[in-house]
Amino acid sequence: MRIAIDAMGGDLAPVEIVKGVTQARDQYTDVTFILFGDEKQINPLLTNKERIEVVHTDEVILGTDEPVRAVRRKKNASMVLMAQAVKDGQADACISAGNTGALMAAGLFIVGRIPGIERPALAPTLPTLDGSGFLMLDLGANSDAKPEHLVQYSIMGSVYAEKVRGITKPTVGLLNIGTEDKKGNELTRQSFELLKQAPINFIGNVESRDLLNGVADVVVTDGFTGNMVLKTIEGTAISMFSMLKDAFTSSFKSKLAAGLVREELRGIKNKMDYTEYGGAGLFGLNAPVVKAHGSSNANAILNAIKQAKLMVDKEVSQTINSAISVPSE
Amino acid sequence: MRIAIDAMGGDLAPVEIVKGVTQARDQYTDVTFILFGDEKQINPLLTNKERIEVVHTDEVILGTDEPVRAVRRKKNASMVLMAQAVKDGQADACISAGNTGALMAAGLFIVGRIPGIERPALAPTLPTLDGSGFLMLDLGANSDAKPEHLVQYSIMGSVYAEKVRGITKPTVGLLNIGTEDKKGNELTRQSFELLKQAPINFIGNVESRDLLNGVADVVVTDGFTGNMVLKTIEGTAISMFSMLKDAFTSSFKSKLAAGLVREELRGIKNKMDYTEYGGAGLFGLNAPVVKAHGSSNANAILNAIKQAKLMVDKEVSQTINSAISVPSE
Repeated sequence: MRIAIDAMGGDLAPVEIVKGVTQARDQYTDVTFILFGDEKQINPLLTNKERIEVVHTDEVILGTDEPVRAVRRKKNASMVLMAQAVKDGQADACISAGNTGALMAAGLFIVGRIPGIERPALAPTLPTLDGSGFLMLDLGANSDAKPEHLVQYSIMGSVYAEKVRGITKPTVGLLNIGTEDKKGNELTRQSFELLKQAPINFIGNVESRDLLNGVADVVVTDGFTGNMVLKTIEGTAISMFSMLKDAFTSSFKSKLAAGLVREELRGIKNKMDYTEYGGAGLFGLNAPVVKAHGSSNANAILNAIKQAKLMVDKEVSQTINSAISVPSE
Repeated sequence: MRIAIDAMGGDLAPVEIVKGVTQARDQYTDVTFILFGDEKQINPLLTNKERIEVVHTDEVILGTDEPVRAVRRKKNASMVLMAQAVKDGQADACISAGNTGALMAAGLFIVGRIPGIERPALAPTLPTLDGSGFLMLDLGANSDAKPEHLVQYSIMGSVYAEKVRGITKPTVGLLNIGTEDKKGNELTRQSFELLKQAPINFIGNVESRDLLNGVADVVVTDGFTGNMVLKTIEGTAISMFSMLKDAFTSSFKSKLAAGLVREELRGIKNKMDYTEYGGAGLFGLNAPVVKAHGSSNANAILNAIKQAKLMVDKEVSQTINSAISVPSE
């Protein structure tokens, strides 16, 4: 298997990216890695180049670049060359921690959609309190969605949950503002009816306040709502940690208390840290494209590689293709 | 001033409702209260009936009732009679901690919309870390909204923030999944353009992760997204408190720590408790209608009464009416 990596994407690139790749190389002896980026920066980080190829390029897509334009114009950007390697059959999957919008554009325009998939979806695994996590999609690949798109999301999510996460008959919930069947806006009401007919284990509407309790294995929603909910969870958690920090440094007594529960508090922070759960898959493309978190360290990159490798091993794209394909008659 | 109260609505009715009303009666000597509900339950709670009238009814709308049908069929329900008192001019404002959907229906069908307002909006004040709070609307009066509705929400919210909360030129933000001008879905992109033209202090797009930092005085969004975000904040906070509770009871050491920071932790919980900020106003109706939280205790009812009284004193409905009314030419 060959995995293409954007060595220049992300806040800690290329150091942590290369470190993660060398760790993965030592762990997965059947994988060869192709690193795209500045060889002057990458080579010094590689003491052992076994199963690691470096393809040099000076060009890079920045976090501030307008995604679609950047992918179209920066033909030699590390991310673009990485996607091109997948399209040309030189790699089976690709991973970038760079500009999310640009990676979605590169996935769509270069790697290409599975026939029949109208909209790819961004699908991270998010934390639950029991540590098992759940898959949520779409988290922002497309802001607006139609009911038919949500059905495709539910099928792609079910395939991934079953193949990669090893869940038999994964439960699928529709994110809504109430659990009753008729709840919600026009999109959720129409989607509810279609999801009941879909070849998935649909359990009905689920509420955002129950997400962290693991209310479903797969949660589907439009990209606007999904992105909104993700940012709200993040923002609330960050705000609460900031209040806790203030509380634990407000007096000698509270500093003493902080020392006593340091380990437990770190445990809570880790539980809420979704970079622990790997990257976000971009589903519906001809090959696995994984978006690692922008602040990915070596461990996050290792997790993203593990995920991409599993998606190739378990033939997720092929399975989605056959599950989606419309009968030809 | 006369304020009508649904004595039977809410989890702690009628005890806490009546207690809150008697406290308000002692505080606001220019207000007379009309309590609607079961006099056999209410009268024993009233040792002093000064400026408190009780209108007896046996009928009550339950939390499980289908809202619109309940309001149409239960003509003598405490909530319906309360709204009718406002319509008939016997009361200047009304408050219920009962079924939210039913109160919205009673507001719409009985109290009635301000001419020119297409959709009323549910508008609670939500917590910020600095304790000042911000107004967000719509939180679910209408799941689907058009750009023009968001403009009306922004005007109503601005009037309230200025008149009741005493904020000069309140800032208005559009809830979105990014701060850049062109971000979001079709609704937010179109709303953005209209809000730029509206007679408000529009500061552009705001993100949900910045809400608790007080990013704007008034935040506008469609009811589906608003309700979703509110429930996500609640759910995340509850999950984190539950993890903290586990952490603080896991060992002797952590129990000791809990004892040392008990007060600080209670402070955090209070900050996240939006019942402290009064009830949610239902904006766009001919008179103030306030939804108190379902689990309201006497203090929450007192806060809701204070809020309704301010809305009457400051002529919020009248000001919205003149701000919205289309020039007749």
